[in-house]
Amino acid sequence: MNTDKPITAILRIQASDQKGLIARVTDFIQRNNGNIVALDQYTDTFEKQFFMRVEWEVEGFAIERDQIGAAFQYAIATPCHMEWELDFSDQRLRMCIMVSKMSHCLYDLLARYHGGELDVDIPIIIGNHEEMAAVAAQFGIHFELIKITKENKAEMEARQMQLMADNKIDFIVLARYMQILSNDFIRAYPNKIINIHHSTLPAFVGAKPYHQAYARGVKLIGATSHYVTEELDAGPIIDQDIIRVTHHDTPFTMIQKGKDVEKIVLSRAVEAHIARKTLVYKNKTVIFN
Amino acid sequence: MNTDKPITAILRIQASDQKGLIARVTDFIQRNNGNIVALDQYTDTFEKQFFMRVEWEVEGFAIERDQIGAAFQYAIATPCHMEWELDFSDQRLRMCIMVSKMSHCLYDLLARYHGGELDVDIPIIIGNHEEMAAVAAQFGIHFELIKITKENKAEMEARQMQLMADNKIDFIVLARYMQILSNDFIRAYPNKIINIHHSTLPAFVGAKPYHQAYARGVKLIGATSHYVTEELDAGPIIDQDIIRVTHHDTPFTMIQKGKDVEKIVLSRAVEAHIARKTLVYKNKTVIFN
Amino acid sequence: MNTDKPITAILRIQASDQKGLIARVTDFIQRNNGNIVALDQYTDTFEKQFFMRVEWEVEGFAIERDQIGAAFQYAIATPCHMEWELDFSDQRLRMCIMVSKMSHCLYDLLARYHGGELDVDIPIIIGNHEEMAAVAAQFGIHFELIKITKENKAEMEARQMQLMADNKIDFIVLARYMQILSNDFIRAYPNKIINIHHSTLPAFVGAKPYHQAYARGVKLIGATSHYVTEELDAGPIIDQDIIRVTHHDTPFTMIQKGKDVEKIVLSRAVEAHIARKTLVYKNKTVIFN
Amino acid sequence: MNTDKPITAILRIQASDQKGLIARVTDFIQRNNGNIVALDQYTDTFEKQFFMRVEWEVEGFAIERDQIGAAFQYAIATPCHMEWELDFSDQRLRMCIMVSKMSHCLYDLLARYHGGELDVDIPIIIGNHEEMAAVAAQFGIHFELIKITKENKAEMEARQMQLMADNKIDFIVLARYMQILSNDFIRAYPNKIINIHHSTLPAFVGAKPYHQAYARGVKLIGATSHYVTEELDAGPIIDQDIIRVTHHDTPFTMIQKGKDVEKIVLSRAVEAHIARKTLVYKNKTVIFN
Repeated sequence: MNTDKPITAILRIQASDQKGLIARVTDFIQRNNGNIVALDQYTDTFEKQFFMRVEWEVEGFAIERDQIGAAFQYAIATPCHMEWELDFSDQRLRMCIMVSKMSHCLYDLLARYHGGELDVDIPIIIGNHEEMAAVAAQFGIHFELIKITKENKAEMEARQMQLMADNKIDFIVLARYMQILSNDFIRAYPNKIINIHHSTLPAFVGAKPYHQAYARGVKLIGATSHYVTEELDAGPIIDQDIIRVTHHDTPFTMIQKGKDVEKIVLSRAVEAHIARKTLVYKNKTVIFN
Repeated sequence: MNTDKPITAILRIQASDQKGLIARVTDFIQRNNGNIVALDQYTDTFEKQFFMRVEWEVEGFAIERDQIGAAFQYAIATPCHMEWELDFSDQRLRMCIMVSKMSHCLYDLLARYHGGELDVDIPIIIGNHEEMAAVAAQFGIHFELIKITKENKAEMEARQMQLMADNKIDFIVLARYMQILSNDFIRAYPNKIINIHHSTLPAFVGAKPYHQAYARGVKLIGATSHYVTEELDAGPIIDQDIIRVTHHDTPFTMIQKGKDVEKIVLSRAVEAHIARKTLVYKNKTVIFN
Repeated sequence: MNTDKPITAILRIQASDQKGLIARVTDFIQRNNGNIVALDQYTDTFEKQFFMRVEWEVEGFAIERDQIGAAFQYAIATPCHMEWELDFSDQRLRMCIMVSKMSHCLYDLLARYHGGELDVDIPIIIGNHEEMAAVAAQFGIHFELIKITKENKAEMEARQMQLMADNKIDFIVLARYMQILSNDFIRAYPNKIINIHHSTLPAFVGAKPYHQAYARGVKLIGATSHYVTEELDAGPIIDQDIIRVTHHDTPFTMIQKGKDVEKIVLSRAVEAHIARKTLVYKNKTVIFN
Repeated sequence: MNTDKPITAILRIQASDQKGLIARVTDFIQRNNGNIVALDQYTDTFEKQFFMRVEWEVEGFAIERDQIGAAFQYAIATPCHMEWELDFSDQRLRMCIMVSKMSHCLYDLLARYHGGELDVDIPIIIGNHEEMAAVAAQFGIHFELIKITKENKAEMEARQMQLMADNKIDFIVLARYMQILSNDFIRAYPNKIINIHHSTLPAFVGAKPYHQAYARGVKLIGATSHYVTEELDAGPIIDQDIIRVTHHDTPFTMIQKGKDVEKIVLSRAVEAHIARKTLVYKNKTVIFN
């Protein structure tokens, strides 16, 4: 987990484009003796919008860690009308995984977690079926079974949200969780719920995308990781990838082959989120280097 | 152009699945002293449908070339209720390219043609704008300008079809031809019109798919080559491929990057069609080895 | 695990190319009332060598299961000078995984195994370090620690081979096992040891391929699964794949990114081996459909 | 060709890493009223080396165009010990293409050029065989035949270099030019000769890489574009890509399939070079956004 990596401050910014934004931000860090270890910026020339992610070492920085936000707000963000978010690399996020019956995405996340590749805590896994309890148990993670029916959905979601609060969950990963979340639930976690959909959206929205793909006779299948928004399968896309299929493939073999793409595309999105490399603007993502 | 390759008979078959089809077909060729140089078969277990492509050398085959079809019909196809198509590798297909203003797909096809990679004749290129006349002239191919308006569409299509007849055209390639063909035109060339659509269908059907892709914030763009059917962008898919994009990409850069995928995916489809490696069944393609 | 799939006989054949081989084999199956569910064949026109894999349902076949081999030998293989191998889909292979310290390939295999995707038994995992004992324990699989030094190598390999015999191991998967096997060991398992090498061979043979890749400044990294032969990293390649890297990547990030390719490419090879879809000829593989 | 795009200054920098480099460069542009349209920077933490590309609009910039270099040298480069290169987007580079007998890469470059996608002048194409004269003629570009033998190589290279000088050539593209350039020639154009090699280097250096790939039984073939250095096929890699092959492929079909990868990978490198997005350091490239 690179425990010897120096602690960094990670600042993500967006603002209307205007001259000198990079110079002002980097000058702020430089004047306060900050050592920049990564910087990526991007200007959307259509939307006239500026995006930036800059990461610098906390040690030796002239401003106290808990004062940096206020100082940046006063010196730069207010005059430049910026929105921003400041994180520190040693703030370990707390992640909840929600699952149904399929294990491949869950295993891929837990294998990375156990192998020290995901810098998060996973205090809880929530399933709407009991099948994945055994996988959670293999990794010693608490599993909570919350069966959802049409009748009890509101009540069960309230219980889920209580569990999120109790476990101080920062973000939620739907690892092939086959339930549609209510708008209330989604609104409670804006840009904090990551879903994997088993098609290259916007193709094959909704149920059974591999069956749809088979019916259409496509030569590629794929997967899309995205932040969940109120409109089904329409949130900001984080990552996508594909795998080639042929006329030999059936819905069954597509489901099998697709698993490899799904798990990789979901895990990459989770890694980008954890590294604070994502930023959402107008239902799209900027994915920083 | 591999002019030293022996002339082959190419037989494509489909039938309801039943025991012993491969044995019967291969036995027919074997008994008549045919040397099989390629064989590929596939059974769609969902549709209970059998597909086969077999290619054997004409020289030394016991049945006269112009009698093979009748003999096969009598001995195998009739008892087994097969549909089939027989071609010979020295039957050079005649191809018409239809274009509008963009040159990348046209150049890619003509470069392959000129380089001896496409075993076809291209007697004519038809454009609805004059821009591509110069490219046709570079390659010494007759260019016919047929401007289409709402008012003259039926008349102009009649003229196009007359040109197809006059030039004994076997199949048509729409190399970014930005007109929608009438149903009458399409019905006249079933599974003989190949189009390139600049998205991975069924995503982004219709106009300006890169603008749609940009608006949706996808991380992949792509292209689809397909046979044209009456429903727009809904015909049997021959090939698809993708290229990765990021938040840096605009509709303009997507158009630029997409050209490379479009031209390759279209040319691959044309090559498969020329090699008689495609077979259409229920709005899907079987692409033989 | 598709337990409802009918039991099939799987026949893999190679022979010098000669007329009528497909007809003879399919006729043999057809005459004995076999229902072919898959057939793939290939003729290497350079080497004049014929390869075929055919799979048919055991139920209803006119020859008793334990007589098929002898009958095929007599009727077809002897007159045609074929080499062949006959398997049955209900013969569950026994697989041994050998590991060192890295968990990603091991987890990927075990996740598939636990998810019912790998139709094998895994009675034992052998490690030359103790780190993977915990992963084996998570899945309830016996782990044997066999530490290898220069001095004890012959003795330890003898112990490994005894474990293979005791556990009736059919094939061995080196899931990032960082030891070089002796020629004696390799000769004992011809085309039965699958290794994953973390480069697209033949690039970057030997140690630390990602460091080599970084030093060379490549824009792609990859992985290769192959059968192990006496020459290091030079055995028949089963599968390969790549992932894009940029100047931003360090050996450390290449190692991280490469894990995803390694595990997928290894698991695909294991699946092909289990499905009896591989055949080795002159240090290359034929991978059947 | 986006003739309406504003003229920009493009500055590429490298220096030993030190605090505040980004701030100093962006402050220099900002203070002089420059509007930055693109910025990309990268720090190689292994080599402690800093790289940056920044592009800003010339119009409205406070320093005269022909004074920018001197001003930057004085204010920033000298105190920070930077190496740098300054270009302007309206300086149209002059490119020479060198060819042998194969047309695919040449056609791909000329099709882009003719389609307005390559912002260069191509005053001359040099061939060591006459085959490509016809292609040059199709595009109205002067073709010079310079046949090279062992005996006349020095003399012929002198003639080539005279042609480069006469035509004020800025950089050279070897579009499958099958001759090895002398060290004297290479030293005259450092990081200004782009070659395409038909393998994913460092695999299959030297002659007939597809035959080598076939012999090794690989499952992927590819291409590499790189700057030419004195060691054969060992220069800084600009781009690489691959295409999947199977046991069905022969050296002949690999050559055919490989053409598509070669031409795309070469053209992408040419585009990056023209856009001044490449920078060479220690035999590697930084490819800026």
